[in-house]
Amino acid sequence: MDDFTFKRKRSVGNRLFSRTDTPKKRSNLEGGYVSTSLRKHNDEEFDGDVTEWTMEGTGSRVAYDDFTTIDWIHDFAKERARQKRLHQQKGIRGRLNILFDAMEGWIVVLVVGIASGILAGIIDITSDWLSDLKEGYCETAFYLNRRFCCLGYDDEQDECREWITWNSALQARSVAAEFWTNYLFYIIFSTLFATTAAYLVKTYSPYSAGSGIPEIKTILGGFVIRKFLGWWTLVIKGIGVCLVAASSLCLGKEGPLVHLACCCGNIIPRIFPKFRYNEAKKREVLSAAAAAGISVAFGAPIGGVLFSLEEVSYYFPFRTMWRSFFCAMVAAVSLAFMNPFRTGKLVLFQVVYDRDWHAFELFFFALLGVMGGLYGALFIRMNLKIAAFRQDSWLRFFSVHEVVFMSVLTSIVSYLNIFMRVNPSELVANLFRECVGGDYHNLCNHVNHWKPTLLLLIASILKFFFTAITFGLKVPAGVWLPSMAIGACFGRAVGLTVHAWHMYNPNFWLFASCAPEGRCITPGMYAMVGAAATFGGISRMTVSLVVIMFELTGALTYVLPIMITVMISKWVGDAFDKEGISDGWIRMSEYPFLDTKEEYVYNTLASQVMTRVDDLIVITATGHTLDSLEKLLNSVDYKGFPVVHNAKDMLLTGYISRSELRYAIDKAKKKPGILLSSPCYFSGNLPILDDSIFIDFKPWMDQTPITVSHKFPMEMVIELFKKMGLRYTLVTKKGQLLGLITKKDVLRHLSIMYDPNSSEDDLQENLMMLPERRMSSFVGDFGID
Amino acid sequence: MDDFTFKRKRSVGNRLFSRTDTPKKRSNLEGGYVSTSLRKHNDEEFDGDVTEWTMEGTGSRVAYDDFTTIDWIHDFAKERARQKRLHQQKGIRGRLNILFDAMEGWIVVLVVGIASGILAGIIDITSDWLSDLKEGYCETAFYLNRRFCCLGYDDEQDECREWITWNSALQARSVAAEFWTNYLFYIIFSTLFATTAAYLVKTYSPYSAGSGIPEIKTILGGFVIRKFLGWWTLVIKGIGVCLVAASSLCLGKEGPLVHLACCCGNIIPRIFPKFRYNEAKKREVLSAAAAAGISVAFGAPIGGVLFSLEEVSYYFPFRTMWRSFFCAMVAAVSLAFMNPFRTGKLVLFQVVYDRDWHAFELFFFALLGVMGGLYGALFIRMNLKIAAFRQDSWLRFFSVHEVVFMSVLTSIVSYLNIFMRVNPSELVANLFRECVGGDYHNLCNHVNHWKPTLLLLIASILKFFFTAITFGLKVPAGVWLPSMAIGACFGRAVGLTVHAWHMYNPNFWLFASCAPEGRCITPGMYAMVGAAATFGGISRMTVSLVVIMFELTGALTYVLPIMITVMISKWVGDAFDKEGISDGWIRMSEYPFLDTKEEYVYNTLASQVMTRVDDLIVITATGHTLDSLEKLLNSVDYKGFPVVHNAKDMLLTGYISRSELRYAIDKAKKKPGILLSSPCYFSGNLPILDDSIFIDFKPWMDQTPITVSHKFPMEMVIELFKKMGLRYTLVTKKGQLLGLITKKDVLRHLSIMYDPNSSEDDLQENLMMLPERRMSSFVGDFGID
Repeated sequence: MDDFTFKRKRSVGNRLFSRTDTPKKRSNLEGGYVSTSLRKHNDEEFDGDVTEWTMEGTGSRVAYDDFTTIDWIHDFAKERARQKRLHQQKGIRGRLNILFDAMEGWIVVLVVGIASGILAGIIDITSDWLSDLKEGYCETAFYLNRRFCCLGYDDEQDECREWITWNSALQARSVAAEFWTNYLFYIIFSTLFATTAAYLVKTYSPYSAGSGIPEIKTILGGFVIRKFLGWWTLVIKGIGVCLVAASSLCLGKEGPLVHLACCCGNIIPRIFPKFRYNEAKKREVLSAAAAAGISVAFGAPIGGVLFSLEEVSYYFPFRTMWRSFFCAMVAAVSLAFMNPFRTGKLVLFQVVYDRDWHAFELFFFALLGVMGGLYGALFIRMNLKIAAFRQDSWLRFFSVHEVVFMSVLTSIVSYLNIFMRVNPSELVANLFRECVGGDYHNLCNHVNHWKPTLLLLIASILKFFFTAITFGLKVPAGVWLPSMAIGACFGRAVGLTVHAWHMYNPNFWLFASCAPEGRCITPGMYAMVGAAATFGGISRMTVSLVVIMFELTGALTYVLPIMITVMISKWVGDAFDKEGISDGWIRMSEYPFLDTKEEYVYNTLASQVMTRVDDLIVITATGHTLDSLEKLLNSVDYKGFPVVHNAKDMLLTGYISRSELRYAIDKAKKKPGILLSSPCYFSGNLPILDDSIFIDFKPWMDQTPITVSHKFPMEMVIELFKKMGLRYTLVTKKGQLLGLITKKDVLRHLSIMYDPNSSEDDLQENLMMLPERRMSSFVGDFGID
Repeated sequence: MDDFTFKRKRSVGNRLFSRTDTPKKRSNLEGGYVSTSLRKHNDEEFDGDVTEWTMEGTGSRVAYDDFTTIDWIHDFAKERARQKRLHQQKGIRGRLNILFDAMEGWIVVLVVGIASGILAGIIDITSDWLSDLKEGYCETAFYLNRRFCCLGYDDEQDECREWITWNSALQARSVAAEFWTNYLFYIIFSTLFATTAAYLVKTYSPYSAGSGIPEIKTILGGFVIRKFLGWWTLVIKGIGVCLVAASSLCLGKEGPLVHLACCCGNIIPRIFPKFRYNEAKKREVLSAAAAAGISVAFGAPIGGVLFSLEEVSYYFPFRTMWRSFFCAMVAAVSLAFMNPFRTGKLVLFQVVYDRDWHAFELFFFALLGVMGGLYGALFIRMNLKIAAFRQDSWLRFFSVHEVVFMSVLTSIVSYLNIFMRVNPSELVANLFRECVGGDYHNLCNHVNHWKPTLLLLIASILKFFFTAITFGLKVPAGVWLPSMAIGACFGRAVGLTVHAWHMYNPNFWLFASCAPEGRCITPGMYAMVGAAATFGGISRMTVSLVVIMFELTGALTYVLPIMITVMISKWVGDAFDKEGISDGWIRMSEYPFLDTKEEYVYNTLASQVMTRVDDLIVITATGHTLDSLEKLLNSVDYKGFPVVHNAKDMLLTGYISRSELRYAIDKAKKKPGILLSSPCYFSGNLPILDDSIFIDFKPWMDQTPITVSHKFPMEMVIELFKKMGLRYTLVTKKGQLLGLITKKDVLRHLSIMYDPNSSEDDLQENLMMLPERRMSSFVGDFGID
């Protein structure tokens, strides 16, 4: 993540466009152009040949640089042009091409789905095996985990002979020796796994750290982070997630599974140029891959699609939804085919309850919802504080050591509490279960409720602290499953308490609706509701979360309580902070992400937010030479330049990005007959001269930038950015260029408006300068030409 | 529907803005203003007091007229302004107000959900009772249907004594007499029900006819159809749908249930001003109501939400999705609470299969998919042809007679085939069932497969023709369930055939994957797949349809075959026509509906589609009197006028709609001291004069209309219309007004581009006039001032 940190630091407080000399003045500067200062950039001409469509539209482009925002409008225009070319083909061959083109998208998501399913299956099996290795090994075949090793034995009755625990391997004689042997092996293996994962991440792929969800959200929102979804990340994160899931660290593998699925969704479409050369199209596949990720992580294909829609995707047309659904289904079926749990079920914690819930239980569910919301708010604040401290202090140089320390500490503590010792996914599965056909960890002991209840409460509290500290370490890790485990522990504890209450006071008025005989309370359902509450509190997901939980039980009956709980959890959580854990990380990492779900309300005009024209470098349509443009590029590092007709009328002509200008200059220089003093034009009306003596930059310029009036309310501008996927918009008044608003300006504006630390007065001071006044002063002192 | 027809005819071929004299010239016309020609319009000042926010934004508005397009941008701006006012309130009271405001939306959807659930329960019970009335009545209590009357009897063994069939009531002696009595009563009751429904619709509520889905789509897309979702529609359609569902007509009650839920969703929010006075907010509740409608119609809450998202909603922010989910859940739970089928299930045709499907069956499922697609394409074409003929011929004056005729005919034919005689929802339920625990209609007869197979085939073919003719009659009626019934009949027939094949040739290579003993094929699953195929073929829904079918079975296993079938069905159907039945009806009815799902690809510029400025009435910012404006309004009936700075520079100042101008004039005239000759201004720079002698129209003008450059590609303009919900956009070139594009222009353009009858040459001729050339000719001959 070092790359990021560097990027981040540099961009803080650094205005995208700051006031400098005007280009006219600069062109008179002394000195030749300095080739050494030429920043290395991607020279690939991304749009292929400059065809007619780019001549009168958004202009031709080069590939996006790393850490830049993509231009959705341009990419859509490119796709439409490609479609048009395709549909102009006649005959059988043309028709076949069209058919194959239409099928490409389906083939891609099919392969992505299968790959995600298989990957998830392999990871499930591997991490299970590694996890069991902490306790012992299979004598008959070392590569089998305990369940497969002991296949055929009844868990309750027989003792499995093939499974050799470490203490029996070392022939521990006394009970104490047995205990200490097991304890030691637990700590050693745990730490070994975690350390290996941390070392791999640090050495080979820093991008594999964390859950990856914040970055995926940002990438889908239209940002380019090269290599984040590459081969290397896939391999290292794949190995790392198995190791981490098998260690005792309070981390899950669900978030990383989404990241891994997205890696598949990035690598596989590369074989088709349609996706390879179009960042917007690529993101359609990534949306589908994210759905597949959730589908295999939770065994919830519909939940996956809704997750992709609700949580991560920015641009989600209906076509993408249908493909995502297909991708998620294929992934689920592939995983079911691999059958990693040998239960025929997709996830370990799929449940069926045979009792209905009672109205009075809604009160307890609401309580769980409140706790979930509080948990989420507290967790996010604490985790972000710790993460910020880690990033800014000396700790950041000791990422592996930190993992070792946390792993040892967690192992030592966890082993002593059965609910912390077991694998979190196994724990969640057991907590969700009804007390039918087996007792898990003494949860169904009808005599003594208090011991498991106390252990569960201790587990939930300790897990909370461990998770909050651990999530953010440089290992592949998710926070969803640990959150669910915490909620499930707490929920089961509440459920056990209510159950005990009912057992000892069956005639209490609260339990009037219970049947006179038999059990009334299902503590397993409390665990599930509690898990939903904490999951909701931490992620602030709504529909997708409810659907995921629904797909775990499959029965409509339990949706209403889960829904109410999730709703309350979200409300309580939102009362503290409006952001979920991934949004928090996005904000902390300062990724340029514009949330499409938020709606913003205040009274600002476009003219109050824009970078004013006198703070910009504006290029006039005529009067340049190659040399002057080159010097301009070398002296400033702004990412783009508005083009006006001339400096007097300031009528907007277009906008050219730095990379396209750079590319066009470099290309022109290679042409024979072009001199450094050759005149350059951006205007539509070229002088009728020989081609060799002037350079036309028009094809590289966005000739139809979206413009807004200076009186436009900022909310509308933000809507335009959100819905149209803009990179920039130009502010005009009667055709005259007044300023520029980039996505960064919008984000900065939003962060000012929603900064809890800025007072009302600051805002007023910042924004309430009347636009008219600013305009007039600008018109006065602006003196180009 | 007479209103519509009139509207439709009038608008055909009538250009929204055609060339007339310029306003300047008109103001010199003789004669006072003609008050009689004043069209009656809605004088309600919709935005309340003209507050500061309207002064510098989209302008103040009056309520929308009937059959007009709403301005999403304005309505959102209004809502944001309301939110801002609300959040400026301080203290406990202010906080409570904010809290209550946030809860209003939830309360509304809660009530809408409960109402929809109860309504659906009542309709289910009533239509069941009416349907059984065709066969007999309950002796102990006449208001019970057969199932409730015979509660306690085992269907198979005992004969129910309380249920008196008509032949036993009339003491028919012979078998022939019995048959004819039953036949006659079947025909009489059927026709009676259908005729009553038709009479009610014709007399009290023409809007109750049909399914209502096309209109709801149009309304949600931002069109105003007054009374379509009112009390009267609710009552008449509620009664009518019970009658129709009980008659023998091949029509369903699922579509009308969505319409009825939307009526609830329109009526209930009226008590809150937030929804009452904001058409955009109202549509959020309607989206939720549509989800509730599907939820109760198919017992599929998640499917309902996705239906609302996929099929009907235009503007569907995530907040709405969450509320829709809640609304759908509440509706489903309310219906389950009423338990209309006394099975504890939400729908009659909820199923569980205990056999898995085999890979070779995918071939047959694909076949069913192809058939479903063909069915859909054929049905839609035939139905629309018949409907168009009905509308244009003398038949339209005999809507009730037509219903009588069709009802008699359907009854006569239907009674003779058991699969046509029974209630379609009962039929679908029985066809979906496995042959476990009971034989339905001889479907599980293992000896003679051919009789039921033949009957099923006949039923599916006859039902196809009857439904295609019947859907479009002026009765409340849906086409989804009949389609499912047709598909289920066909699917079951295929299933029975495959089953027989397997029974007689168990060793055939195709059946290698079957278990050596026992049944291998589940014909019920074929029925379900077939139903999904025809449902998909007719509606062209994808995700929501699969989720609805998934919620019927609840098992993930069957989703993949259903999905593949639906996909194939859609592909085959789309190969003929791209539109589903509701889109077809929208096109035929010429509703102004802009499909957000379609993506359009071609090479047109905004300047080629716009109504040019010399074909428009353009208002200058100054130089008007009340009198001249009034005359302008009376002489033309355009819906709005662009405002320019002056006729020479043509710099765009804003846009004012007819209704706002009319309202502002009327309001001004009531002010003391205002004369007909008082000067009127639209400009920002008013002369500093006494208020009494001039009128400022600025607050009524949209001062920040969205503008596009003349070089903008039309695809981008369409994207703007779709995503931002525009009503109009103004085309400018360097600030100068060049033309206007309204939603109607966009729709007309789309219909030209996608008209299958227009040749490539026509298009070229229509569009390929180079913009430059048109521009210059316009600049030349435009001579205002």
